[in-house]
Amino acid sequence: MNENQFNRKSSRREFIQKTALAGAGASVLLSNPASLFANNSNSINMEQNIKSKGYAAFDTSGKLQPWEFERRPVGDNDILIDVKYASICHSDIHQMKGHWGPQQYPQVPGHEIVGIVAAVGKNVTKFKVGDRAGVGCMVDSCMACDNCNHGDEHYCENGQTLFTYGYPDKTSPTGITQGGYSKNIVVRDHFAVHIPEHISMQEAAPLLCAGITTYSPLMKADFKIGDKVGVAGIGGLGHMAVKLAVSKGAEVYAFTTSADKVDDIKSFGAKEVIVVDSPEKLQPMRGKLDYMISTIPYAYDISSYASCVKPDGHYTQVGVPVGGQLTINTFSLMFSRVNLNVSLIGGIPETQEVVHYCADNGVKPEIQMISGEQINEAWENVVNKKARYRYVIDTATF
Amino acid sequence: MNENQFNRKSSRREFIQKTALAGAGASVLLSNPASLFANNSNSINMEQNIKSKGYAAFDTSGKLQPWEFERRPVGDNDILIDVKYASICHSDIHQMKGHWGPQQYPQVPGHEIVGIVAAVGKNVTKFKVGDRAGVGCMVDSCMACDNCNHGDEHYCENGQTLFTYGYPDKTSPTGITQGGYSKNIVVRDHFAVHIPEHISMQEAAPLLCAGITTYSPLMKADFKIGDKVGVAGIGGLGHMAVKLAVSKGAEVYAFTTSADKVDDIKSFGAKEVIVVDSPEKLQPMRGKLDYMISTIPYAYDISSYASCVKPDGHYTQVGVPVGGQLTINTFSLMFSRVNLNVSLIGGIPETQEVVHYCADNGVKPEIQMISGEQINEAWENVVNKKARYRYVIDTATF
Repeated sequence: MNENQFNRKSSRREFIQKTALAGAGASVLLSNPASLFANNSNSINMEQNIKSKGYAAFDTSGKLQPWEFERRPVGDNDILIDVKYASICHSDIHQMKGHWGPQQYPQVPGHEIVGIVAAVGKNVTKFKVGDRAGVGCMVDSCMACDNCNHGDEHYCENGQTLFTYGYPDKTSPTGITQGGYSKNIVVRDHFAVHIPEHISMQEAAPLLCAGITTYSPLMKADFKIGDKVGVAGIGGLGHMAVKLAVSKGAEVYAFTTSADKVDDIKSFGAKEVIVVDSPEKLQPMRGKLDYMISTIPYAYDISSYASCVKPDGHYTQVGVPVGGQLTINTFSLMFSRVNLNVSLIGGIPETQEVVHYCADNGVKPEIQMISGEQINEAWENVVNKKARYRYVIDTATF
Repeated sequence: MNENQFNRKSSRREFIQKTALAGAGASVLLSNPASLFANNSNSINMEQNIKSKGYAAFDTSGKLQPWEFERRPVGDNDILIDVKYASICHSDIHQMKGHWGPQQYPQVPGHEIVGIVAAVGKNVTKFKVGDRAGVGCMVDSCMACDNCNHGDEHYCENGQTLFTYGYPDKTSPTGITQGGYSKNIVVRDHFAVHIPEHISMQEAAPLLCAGITTYSPLMKADFKIGDKVGVAGIGGLGHMAVKLAVSKGAEVYAFTTSADKVDDIKSFGAKEVIVVDSPEKLQPMRGKLDYMISTIPYAYDISSYASCVKPDGHYTQVGVPVGGQLTINTFSLMFSRVNLNVSLIGGIPETQEVVHYCADNGVKPEIQMISGEQINEAWENVVNKKARYRYVIDTATF
């Protein structure tokens, strides 16, 4: 911000303050001060709030409705993205329904976001207007601690990781971050990634959460080509885990409760699909796998699944159940000798990495395009295991 | 068994069978057939059941009473040990109270057993009469599978690991294995370990479970000298974990709910003792430890304790709570990035190793000697965290 801009901004703040002090006569302005400065042309006024509209939850019903709201002005380190596509993650549903704790409403979900850069702040060099850009699960952090400096912004040591929707955000006119089921988003440049031209924006969207959330622990598992990798729960995340592990050379064993997914999953490259319609189906796999990842987003018998991993191997949970709690069976685990861990998402550099990897290697999610009006039906399908495998919302329909 | 012995044994079985067929007139013999062959001299008749007496549970009350019972004859690969000392493990209490599933009674607990070899089968070369010998948590396995051949008899791939008490055992006159709160035990030679002369038998007893159960995961953790190792739950197992980790060069952080144990624990060599009288006490330790082991034998907030370990580190649970279940918090674990595992005991070679290690390095449990009549009171003290730190039963008092 140069001195001139600072002065203008300062003047604007002073104007608003003075107007407020002037009393009731200014209330129309104050109720929506940005409207005073609204710019209806295609050029962006960097001083004022950005008007947006999207689909928001207003309560725990799991039903979204159209909503008009505002985002903060584009700051010096920010970019404004015209969101083209946002895909639906099971986490959106969990959080809006209050499964992980009480929420502030209205709240716009969505953390798999791809669009075109429409404006950049004056310090921004990472993007230029017209670039394709993606945003995932977080939009800010302290950017000063060791973890932030090492690409682990999701583990900001100062606790300033700001997740993409529903988190307290003083810069947001609504007081919380608002997600990607919307026409645009303002985000600090560091927290957006480039979307290369050789992947479609629609197919890139799911990589921003489903892709990175499975890629990160798979890479950390450091399996060798030919190692046996298990994937439990073959939905949005799981089908990406299958494709990524196959692409990285693993022999993949997929575990699903949906018998009608078997052919699909084999077409993704899985060596074997185990339909777990009863716990006994896990028995033959006991101690067979080098590594396993579970995307199952509800409470389940994690210890029995984990027992499919060889002794001393690792099992990663990425799905987060209602309330966040899972029960482990110490008897089962003491005999299977498996190491359990839970993985969150991945940092920004690794998110960029998975996008490039998928674009370069043709690892693409299976997507179903929907309009804004179809979101509620799509959510029901996700919960009922009917998604095949990622719904992508076309925001042009908003 | 040579042909002559086989014939004699065969004849005895035939005699019993024929007598049974002869009807009610033989019932006195059949109710206790071994009494027909009882040998009241000090020499051991290798053909007949061994009379024993001990303290047994008769129900889930957690109260033991004296009980006379019989053990199998000393087979060709067996040794008979005159038990001198047996120490009290929290597991004894859990199992007898039915916390881990229904039990057959009467059942003699005890899997920390030391005594003198009183007889050896004809194939036995590992021990001779008069040797000091110890028995821990298991007394047999298939001895043919890969795990058994690699010193992991507790993970017998044929599921034939036979635990020391309460497990179905066709060779046992009572139908189940009977443990060490008794005057003697018959055990396959491989499953007994030598107790060297430079540790007392009383102090060696707790090594057979508390020692090996903490030593095994500590060794597997492969920490470096100076690494920060946490130990949660400073009872029988925990105080051994502290002493072993200190002896192996770790900087030990002990977590206890008993403020009156602090001085003791520091005298064991712990660098710091954290009295966890509220969950907040764990906060300053967050992400500080290279490794942590928990011996807490009841349900607790494992995820908060595990968060004391550095990201990507390991946390081992060895205590088994009522029902065997623990609840994990996926939110907590996704941020702490800790690997959880559960460890059982250790194999026979490693059990021998810990006994030698402790004898050689003066790593001795803190023991309190008790008589048979004091067992019930001691059990209450164990449950009420009043043990300091291992009760050792002197079987001469039976």
